[in-house]
Amino acid sequence: MNAIEDLARLIKKLPGMGEKSALRLSYYLLKSDPTYNRALAERIASIQEKIHPCPVCGSYTEDDICEFCKSEKRDRTELMVVEESQDTVTINQAGIYNGLFHVLGGAINPLNGIGPDKLRIKELLERIDSGNFKEIIIATNPTEEGDTTALYIKRLLEDRKLNVTRLASGLPIGGDLGYADKTTLMRSLKSRIKL
Amino acid sequence: MNAIEDLARLIKKLPGMGEKSALRLSYYLLKSDPTYNRALAERIASIQEKIHPCPVCGSYTEDDICEFCKSEKRDRTELMVVEESQDTVTINQAGIYNGLFHVLGGAINPLNGIGPDKLRIKELLERIDSGNFKEIIIATNPTEEGDTTALYIKRLLEDRKLNVTRLASGLPIGGDLGYADKTTLMRSLKSRIKL
Repeated sequence: MNAIEDLARLIKKLPGMGEKSALRLSYYLLKSDPTYNRALAERIASIQEKIHPCPVCGSYTEDDICEFCKSEKRDRTELMVVEESQDTVTINQAGIYNGLFHVLGGAINPLNGIGPDKLRIKELLERIDSGNFKEIIIATNPTEEGDTTALYIKRLLEDRKLNVTRLASGLPIGGDLGYADKTTLMRSLKSRIKL
Repeated sequence: MNAIEDLARLIKKLPGMGEKSALRLSYYLLKSDPTYNRALAERIASIQEKIHPCPVCGSYTEDDICEFCKSEKRDRTELMVVEESQDTVTINQAGIYNGLFHVLGGAINPLNGIGPDKLRIKELLERIDSGNFKEIIIATNPTEEGDTTALYIKRLLEDRKLNVTRLASGLPIGGDLGYADKTTLMRSLKSRIKL
């Protein structure tokens, strides 16, 4: 195996990469600006040292507390519960929400051995009980696992005086929040339903 | 800009990467095996030091002379002329051709200032005149630039006793050789036409 094939083999392990696209990227890197290659390599090698989950909400951050939890401009009466840290970025970049976030770290999936205890649900309850939230917006993915997780959390919160809502469909069913466009996200937020 | 956004910004510069896919890959790298990240980073940083063009045919290699030019099992009476080094890999992986290659380093494109002098055409003529080729197969991409280049080379070779052929259509017009499947490649090789 030569160096190009070796690089392509590693690139192919990335999600969404086929054999041909991996080879194309390898050739692209072979011909690109060396400064770019060094910068990219350095970032890939160091990303895991620089980033850790925020102890409050669980989204990835370089700081002690993440920018959302730290911000004084965000509405502390609204809490949006998402599966993954990148979902906070998706929502935030859409510019449609100004409350706080809570990252579960996944969704309930018994077949894969992911029960509620594997998710940051205990932390969610503690946070809700010590906070001043009026509404909990459940923004798990519109999949079977996401729906199960939403219902599970809704039941846990039934005794509390809270609006518990869920992002409306409008999100394509079976899809993934990370690929939704801004308009779809906005519509699903606007028409969110009470659970 | 945090480390994730910084990594995504660099990944987005790669061909075929949108904003969302770049962010997804960044998060994937954040959660993946550190050994993998280090290996990928090392390969990206070092690829340009390990690889250089073969002085004979111009395809990328780690050795003094590339595997195609060195091989004693390949037919030295056939020469396939391609635009880029990766095209030799595409053809070779399809297992449909056993002759030698010549890499031009691109195609004639006056609008982008790429004239025949910017390509390895002089080297091609020297190689043909000092070799024993019976057939020159022009396998430039089926684009305007590729066609122009094929005709230009055909005219240069008119006085020589050579079959000059071109990969048949069957390749989707306006497309790129690197994305063709094996069957399409095979058909286009089988029905190649005399120029």
